[in-house]
Amino acid sequence: MLTSIYLIAITAEAMSGALAAGRRNMDLFGVAVIAFLTALGGGTVRDILLGNFPVTWTQHSSYIYLTITGGLVTIVIARFMRHLHQLFLVLDAIGLVAFTVIGCNVALNLGYQTPVIVMSGITTGIFGGILRDLMCNRTPQVLRHELYASVSLVVALVYLFLLREGIDDDITLLAAFSLGLLLRMCAIRWKVSLPVFSYSQARWQ
Amino acid sequence: MLTSIYLIAITAEAMSGALAAGRRNMDLFGVAVIAFLTALGGGTVRDILLGNFPVTWTQHSSYIYLTITGGLVTIVIARFMRHLHQLFLVLDAIGLVAFTVIGCNVALNLGYQTPVIVMSGITTGIFGGILRDLMCNRTPQVLRHELYASVSLVVALVYLFLLREGIDDDITLLAAFSLGLLLRMCAIRWKVSLPVFSYSQARWQ
Amino acid sequence: MLTSIYLIAITAEAMSGALAAGRRNMDLFGVAVIAFLTALGGGTVRDILLGNFPVTWTQHSSYIYLTITGGLVTIVIARFMRHLHQLFLVLDAIGLVAFTVIGCNVALNLGYQTPVIVMSGITTGIFGGILRDLMCNRTPQVLRHELYASVSLVVALVYLFLLREGIDDDITLLAAFSLGLLLRMCAIRWKVSLPVFSYSQARWQ
Repeated sequence: MLTSIYLIAITAEAMSGALAAGRRNMDLFGVAVIAFLTALGGGTVRDILLGNFPVTWTQHSSYIYLTITGGLVTIVIARFMRHLHQLFLVLDAIGLVAFTVIGCNVALNLGYQTPVIVMSGITTGIFGGILRDLMCNRTPQVLRHELYASVSLVVALVYLFLLREGIDDDITLLAAFSLGLLLRMCAIRWKVSLPVFSYSQARWQ
Repeated sequence: MLTSIYLIAITAEAMSGALAAGRRNMDLFGVAVIAFLTALGGGTVRDILLGNFPVTWTQHSSYIYLTITGGLVTIVIARFMRHLHQLFLVLDAIGLVAFTVIGCNVALNLGYQTPVIVMSGITTGIFGGILRDLMCNRTPQVLRHELYASVSLVVALVYLFLLREGIDDDITLLAAFSLGLLLRMCAIRWKVSLPVFSYSQARWQ
Repeated sequence: MLTSIYLIAITAEAMSGALAAGRRNMDLFGVAVIAFLTALGGGTVRDILLGNFPVTWTQHSSYIYLTITGGLVTIVIARFMRHLHQLFLVLDAIGLVAFTVIGCNVALNLGYQTPVIVMSGITTGIFGGILRDLMCNRTPQVLRHELYASVSLVVALVYLFLLREGIDDDITLLAAFSLGLLLRMCAIRWKVSLPVFSYSQARWQ
């Protein structure tokens, strides 16, 4: 179940990466690279930070083929995708929650402490988007826009809390997903953002 | 002793990161991420390069809490911080030296060769600032401004030299700190820089 | 043989990195850092992704000295280098092929699956240039210009195919090099590029 959601999520993220590459006029190869990094970069950074070798996708060739294909197909269907705007927002939100939960589980199974588990979830959730933006030479959007990284944080906290309360696994998963999707959708609908810190002094360093 | 200095240093670096995030109008979450990366990113890159798993901060939750708190507190006190300009320059210099010495020790204990030990020290010293600048979409400042990375290099070389001459550990540490702080302060005071390489030919590649 | 080519290649890549640093007015230290990253960054990213510790260059101090020296010497000879334009394009192409073949071999020896082996080759071939461009705050050129990353892909595929057909190692190597150089030279000569994906819709995410 979580695996099916995961496969849908990495495909959606790959397509988001391909569009970002298109905005930078990258060639087919660049589109494939950015699609791959956006979809699997978060999990890769997590695995490296946690010393979790071999890195997950190196053991699942299907993830590689799926994300690259997703990226390349996007080139063909990009012109129709603006009509699917709503669908993609939902898929992206599902991806954010799925990545977060999976990231928490990986750190949990490796025996890390709670704050590291939470950070593992968030890293898996948001670092693909950060790598995408770094490669496309712009300030990471997930650190500036409507609640996104914060949704990942809330999902990680709720998921861990319910798990430790001994709540049934399926219910825990369902609760984390419902809450995460609800939060993210509300954030988009009403443009909810965290307060922004604007600082304009000259550098002191 | 070195641990106390380290805790002060990562807090100061986290605050520097938060100000950089503020210059990019990041939200609270972005500020926390950049603060964390600036303070602990150098050590993380070092641990990964040296294959030193588990990464240090994953075993010390206090570092995580301290840097994130430091970043968030900065939002509140930023308006007063320009009056503390001098203090921050000193704290930042202390951080640079402390990070360098700690980085050398980590590689030393893992049995790496001398050039790798020196690079481990420098990486720990400067890579937090490099990650901060990458995330804020600007060319890394530490590679362009008054002696900064070079101070880290000198500290690493002197520290290793004294250690191998069999000088007492405390004296070695004191000498490295004095020299590093002196160099950095002089560099700031008289705007000492390394020669700059300016090249403006069209790309040949 | 492959080792000699490798040493020439990392020197050429280091010089390319130094020129990029000069375009950003970096100081001597910055030039050394970018030269090192451009030459050895691809192999470093590969080793980390594959969990191949210790990272190769940490066991070969000569690589460290060679690339940093190459970067610094470039500062002196940069004014003459535009006359060597053609030579550098050839050296860079040789580097691309050598890095790709070496990257494939590393993953092969670690027992990874075919797609991971191919990606290991490409990562070794192109990631130094990507890191160089990220540090110099520009969109990675290798994902946008004449066939470059694609040459790496073709070389990796042909190399693996011949190897598995049981063809003699030397002939396999020779074939991979000939094909790679030919492809890259043709791409430069006739400005062959992959199709570019241009997308200008507002962000949907």
